[in-house]
Amino acid sequence: MTFSTQSKGVYAIAATPFHDDGTIDFTSVDKLTDFYQESGCTGITILGIMGEAPKLEPDESRAIIKRVVERAKVPVIVGISAPGFAAMRSLAKSSMDMGAAGVMVAPTPALRTDDQIVNYFASAVEAIGDDVPWVLQDYPLTLNVVISPGVIAKIISDHPSCLMLKHEDWPGLEKISKLRAMQKSGELREFSILCGNGGMFLDFEPERGADGAMTGYGFPDMLTELVNLSAAGKRDEAHDLFDSHLPLIRYEQQLGVGLAVRKHVLKRRGVIASDAQRKPAQMPTQTARAEVDYLLERLAKHDKRAAI
Amino acid sequence: MTFSTQSKGVYAIAATPFHDDGTIDFTSVDKLTDFYQESGCTGITILGIMGEAPKLEPDESRAIIKRVVERAKVPVIVGISAPGFAAMRSLAKSSMDMGAAGVMVAPTPALRTDDQIVNYFASAVEAIGDDVPWVLQDYPLTLNVVISPGVIAKIISDHPSCLMLKHEDWPGLEKISKLRAMQKSGELREFSILCGNGGMFLDFEPERGADGAMTGYGFPDMLTELVNLSAAGKRDEAHDLFDSHLPLIRYEQQLGVGLAVRKHVLKRRGVIASDAQRKPAQMPTQTARAEVDYLLERLAKHDKRAAI
Amino acid sequence: MTFSTQSKGVYAIAATPFHDDGTIDFTSVDKLTDFYQESGCTGITILGIMGEAPKLEPDESRAIIKRVVERAKVPVIVGISAPGFAAMRSLAKSSMDMGAAGVMVAPTPALRTDDQIVNYFASAVEAIGDDVPWVLQDYPLTLNVVISPGVIAKIISDHPSCLMLKHEDWPGLEKISKLRAMQKSGELREFSILCGNGGMFLDFEPERGADGAMTGYGFPDMLTELVNLSAAGKRDEAHDLFDSHLPLIRYEQQLGVGLAVRKHVLKRRGVIASDAQRKPAQMPTQTARAEVDYLLERLAKHDKRAAI
Amino acid sequence: MTFSTQSKGVYAIAATPFHDDGTIDFTSVDKLTDFYQESGCTGITILGIMGEAPKLEPDESRAIIKRVVERAKVPVIVGISAPGFAAMRSLAKSSMDMGAAGVMVAPTPALRTDDQIVNYFASAVEAIGDDVPWVLQDYPLTLNVVISPGVIAKIISDHPSCLMLKHEDWPGLEKISKLRAMQKSGELREFSILCGNGGMFLDFEPERGADGAMTGYGFPDMLTELVNLSAAGKRDEAHDLFDSHLPLIRYEQQLGVGLAVRKHVLKRRGVIASDAQRKPAQMPTQTARAEVDYLLERLAKHDKRAAI
Repeated sequence: MTFSTQSKGVYAIAATPFHDDGTIDFTSVDKLTDFYQESGCTGITILGIMGEAPKLEPDESRAIIKRVVERAKVPVIVGISAPGFAAMRSLAKSSMDMGAAGVMVAPTPALRTDDQIVNYFASAVEAIGDDVPWVLQDYPLTLNVVISPGVIAKIISDHPSCLMLKHEDWPGLEKISKLRAMQKSGELREFSILCGNGGMFLDFEPERGADGAMTGYGFPDMLTELVNLSAAGKRDEAHDLFDSHLPLIRYEQQLGVGLAVRKHVLKRRGVIASDAQRKPAQMPTQTARAEVDYLLERLAKHDKRAAI
Repeated sequence: MTFSTQSKGVYAIAATPFHDDGTIDFTSVDKLTDFYQESGCTGITILGIMGEAPKLEPDESRAIIKRVVERAKVPVIVGISAPGFAAMRSLAKSSMDMGAAGVMVAPTPALRTDDQIVNYFASAVEAIGDDVPWVLQDYPLTLNVVISPGVIAKIISDHPSCLMLKHEDWPGLEKISKLRAMQKSGELREFSILCGNGGMFLDFEPERGADGAMTGYGFPDMLTELVNLSAAGKRDEAHDLFDSHLPLIRYEQQLGVGLAVRKHVLKRRGVIASDAQRKPAQMPTQTARAEVDYLLERLAKHDKRAAI
Repeated sequence: MTFSTQSKGVYAIAATPFHDDGTIDFTSVDKLTDFYQESGCTGITILGIMGEAPKLEPDESRAIIKRVVERAKVPVIVGISAPGFAAMRSLAKSSMDMGAAGVMVAPTPALRTDDQIVNYFASAVEAIGDDVPWVLQDYPLTLNVVISPGVIAKIISDHPSCLMLKHEDWPGLEKISKLRAMQKSGELREFSILCGNGGMFLDFEPERGADGAMTGYGFPDMLTELVNLSAAGKRDEAHDLFDSHLPLIRYEQQLGVGLAVRKHVLKRRGVIASDAQRKPAQMPTQTARAEVDYLLERLAKHDKRAAI
Repeated sequence: MTFSTQSKGVYAIAATPFHDDGTIDFTSVDKLTDFYQESGCTGITILGIMGEAPKLEPDESRAIIKRVVERAKVPVIVGISAPGFAAMRSLAKSSMDMGAAGVMVAPTPALRTDDQIVNYFASAVEAIGDDVPWVLQDYPLTLNVVISPGVIAKIISDHPSCLMLKHEDWPGLEKISKLRAMQKSGELREFSILCGNGGMFLDFEPERGADGAMTGYGFPDMLTELVNLSAAGKRDEAHDLFDSHLPLIRYEQQLGVGLAVRKHVLKRRGVIASDAQRKPAQMPTQTARAEVDYLLERLAKHDKRAAI
C-alpha cells in the first residue's frame, strides 16, 4: 500500500471541510480521512483543484497536510500546482518533511507546444528535487493544456520520480490504450494510471489498462468496489454497479456545482459536519439540491449506501 | 408542427451519410430523414457541427438542404455558422429559398465581451435579414464563447426573428431556470429552448423549463419518448428510460469519437448504409466498437430498440 | 521572379478595395495591383486575413483572384484558410486553374499538440493536392496556434510542395535563426521565409535569415527599399529608413484599427478610391485619423513618399 | 506625490535584481529604487509580472516589499495577483502593514463574461478589504481577459478603493478616450490612468487622457521626460523623444525576451549588478544582445543616456 509505479485502487481526491463560518473543520478532516480509508481507498490526494486549495492561507494548507498525513495509514499525495516554481518547491518540501508520500503537479495553463510542456515538467522536477515522487496530472478540460501520449511518455521517461499519471483527458480511453501499448512494447517503463473526471468512464478505464481511480465522487466505497470487481474480471457486475451510480456521477460532473454536490452528499452521509465552501463558492440552488436528493433516492433502490 | 417560439419536442441533429468512397449517400439521407420523422422528431437540423458541414463543398451543402427539405414534413433548420457574414448570408438565402424553416447561428470563437457577442448577432441578423427565423446556439465547450443569461436575454429581445435557443452550456441547468424566470417576470418574451450536449442532462432539463432536445443521439425515438413522458408528468418513468440509455449517451459524449459512435449505431439500426466519415475522420478503434456493442447489448435488456 | 523556395523581396498582402456602397471596386483592384508591382514587390498575396476574405461571397473571391492574376506580372498567392478542407480544396483548385502561383494555409485555431498541427497540414496537403505550391502561415497571436521550430521543420520536410514560411510569430527573431541553423546543418531543406507582423521587426529579420517581408504596410515601396538595403549590406541606412517609418508601422499594428489605417494611407496615396470596409468594419475615429495624418506629416520629413 | 485618483507621471514597474547565483541582490534593489526616484518616477510598482514575482518564496516577497517601501519616498504599489483570494488577502495585508501605498490586482485568466469579471473584482475587494487602495490591471494580451469600457466603469463605480487603471489593452487608444468621455459626461468618477505595454503608444496616450505610464522600460528617465513634455503641450518634442526610443521600446516588447533586455539595459546603465533571472529564465542569445547594443548605439546619437 505504498505510492509506487504499481499503485492500484482508488486515491480519494479529498474535499476540505469547513465550518459554516469558513474556518477549517479539523474534526471533519479526521472523519473524512477515516472514511476514505474505511471505504477501501488505497491513497488520499489533498489540496487538489476540488480541495479548494487556492482559498487556503499557506499556514492552513500546511496544517491540513500535517493533520491528514499524521492520521492516514495510506499514502497521502499533496497537490502543489502553483503559478511559480518557488511556491511549488516550498510546498513540496513541507509536504515531504511532514510525511507525504508524494506530490501532484499539473501543467500551467499557458503551455502550448510539446517542447514547452516537456520543459515545464523538467523545471518543476528541478525545483522540487528529483527525489520527490510525483503524479503527473493530465486534465485538458480545465487546464487547457493538451498533452499527447508521446509527450506523456517523454516526461515519464525523463523523470524516474514520476510514478503515476492522473488521467483525466476526455475523450481519454484511447490514450490509456496507447500508453499501455507503448509500455508493453518496451518503449515506456512501468507507471501507475489512476483516472479522474469524476469517474465518468470508470466502467471501461480499467479494461483499457488503468489501475484505478483518483477522484472525489461522494461514494468512494463504490469506486473501490467497482475497481475490485473489474480487477476480478466480473465485468457485468462492475457495469451494473457503475450504471446505477452514473446518473449521480454525471450530475457531479458539472464544474462549480460538482463540489457543492460532493459536499452535500458527504454531509448527508454523515462524514462532514457542513457542506460550507469558502468564498467564492458556488452553492447549489434549492432545485439542484432536490435533484440530487431525488437521484440519491433512485440510487438507494440499487445501492443501500445511498439510503441516507 | 411549425418552427416557432412555441416549438417543442425533439429536433434531430442530422448526421450526413456518406458512401464508403466519401460521396454523399442520398438514399441514406432519405432514409435518415424518414427515420427521424418516424421517431417522432418535430424538426430536423442539418449541417450542424456533427453533420460534417465543413467537409462539404458549397454545392453539396445545397444539394443536401434541397433533398431533406423536399422530403421532410417537419421543419428543417440549417446550420449556417461560418467565419464571415457573406457566407452566412448566402447560405441563409439559399436555405430559405429552398424551403427551410430557419437557420442556426453560433457565435464565432473569437468573441469575448458581452458587447462583442451582442454586436456579433446584430451583424448576423443584419446579414441574413431580420425576416429569417433563427436559432441561437449556446455551446461554450466547443465554441469557447460564454454567453451569460443576461446576454441571451438581450439578443432575444433585440431580435424578434430569434425563435429558439439551442442550449448546450455545461453546467446549464441553472441557466434554463434563470431564463424561464426572466420570462415569467415579464422581462423576456416567449422563446423555445431545446437542449443539446448529446442529451446528457435531458432527465432534468424539461423540469427546468426546456421544451425538449436538439441533439443527434442514435436513438431519437428514445429522446421523443423521454420528452413526452416528461411532458406528461411521468417523472419516474422518464428517469428510468433515461438512466437505461445514459451509459451510451455518456459514451457518445466524447468529442470526435461521438460522431463515429452515432454513425455506428445508425448503421447497426439499419438507417444508414455506411458509417463512413469524410476526412479528417476519427474512426472508432476495434476496442471502442466492441465497447459500444457491449453497451448496446446491455441496453437491449431495458429497451428493445437496442437489440440490433 | 517565380514563387519558389528561393523567393526573396516583398510579397504585398493586398487589401480588397470596395466602393463606399460595399461593392468591389475593380478599378482600384487594378490600380492596387499595379502599385504593388511599381513598388518593387516580387509577389502579391490576396484573400488573406487583412484582405477581408471572409466578407466576400465565393463568386466575389473568384472574381478578385481572376482580376489580380490576369493583371499581375508577379506571382500571386491566394489565402485559402477555411474551417473545412472541402472549401480549401475547392478554392485552391479555382486559384490554380486561374493562374495563381500558389496558396497560403494557416492552422485552424483549435490545434494544440505538435501531432495535431503536423496532421492538420498533412490533411490540408492531401485535400489540395501535393502538386499545389503553398505557403505555411505561422501567426500565433491571431490564430492562437503555437508552432515550434521542430514542427515547422517537420511540415517542411514532409511536404515538398511547401515552398515558403510566412513568419509572424512574436517574439520571432530566434525562430528564424533556429530554422536557418537547421537548414545550414543539413537537417532541413531550402525554403523561403517572408515576415509579417506588419513589418515590426523587419530591421532585424533579414539579418537573421529572412528573405524579406509578406505584409500589407501602406508603403510597400519602403519595404522593398528596406529589404534591398539590407541585402546590399547597408545596415545603417536600412535601420535609418526603418526607424523613420516605425511610428506608423507601430500604429498600424493595432488589430482591427490596422486595416482602417492601411486603407486610409492607400487612399491618401491615391491608390484606392475609397477606404471603405465591408461590415463588420472597424472604422478609425476622427482622432485616430488625425493621429495617422500627424504621423504621416512627421514621416514626410524623412521620406517624401509620405508627403501626401 | 501620493497614490490617489489624481496620480500622474510614471510608476516604474520594478525589476527584481538577483545575484548570478539566484539569490536576491538587495544592494541592487536599493540602487534600483533610488534610480527610479532620480529618474523622476512618481511611484514604483513591485512584484508585477515583470518582477518575477512567481519565482519568489513568500518570505522573499515580503523582504523585497519591506526593503523598497522603507527606502522609497514615492508611493509603492505591490502586485498581489494570485490564483486564490486567500493569498491575495494575506499579501495585501502584509504590504499595507509594511507601508505600501496600495496593491495591484489583475483578473484571473479563466474569466469570460462581463458578470464574471465584475464579480471577481467584488470578491477580490471583499478579500483584501475595501479600505485598501488598489490598481485595476487591464492586460488582455497576457491575461486573456477582455474588459470592455463599460465593465471597467462598473468596477470603478462599485469600488471607491479602486484609484487607478493600469491600462495595457492593445489596441487601447479608443478605450482611454471612451473612459475619459464617460468621466466628462459625469457617468464615471475621477480615477487615474497609467499605461503599460512597455510604452509602445506613450506618444499618443497622454493626448487621449492618460495620466502617464506604468511600465518597466530601461529608460524611466526618458518616460518621465516624455510625460512631462506631453503635459507641457510640447507635442513635437515629445514625439521626437519618443520616436528616438521606439526601436528599443519595440525590441523590449517581446514576451520573455523583454525582461532579459530590460535587465541587460539596467545593468549596462550601472543600476543593477547582474542581469541574472531566476529559472525558468529566457536569456538573450548573443545575437539578441548584439542587436540591443546596436540599438543603444543608434539611440545614443539622439539621447546621451544611451551612451553606455
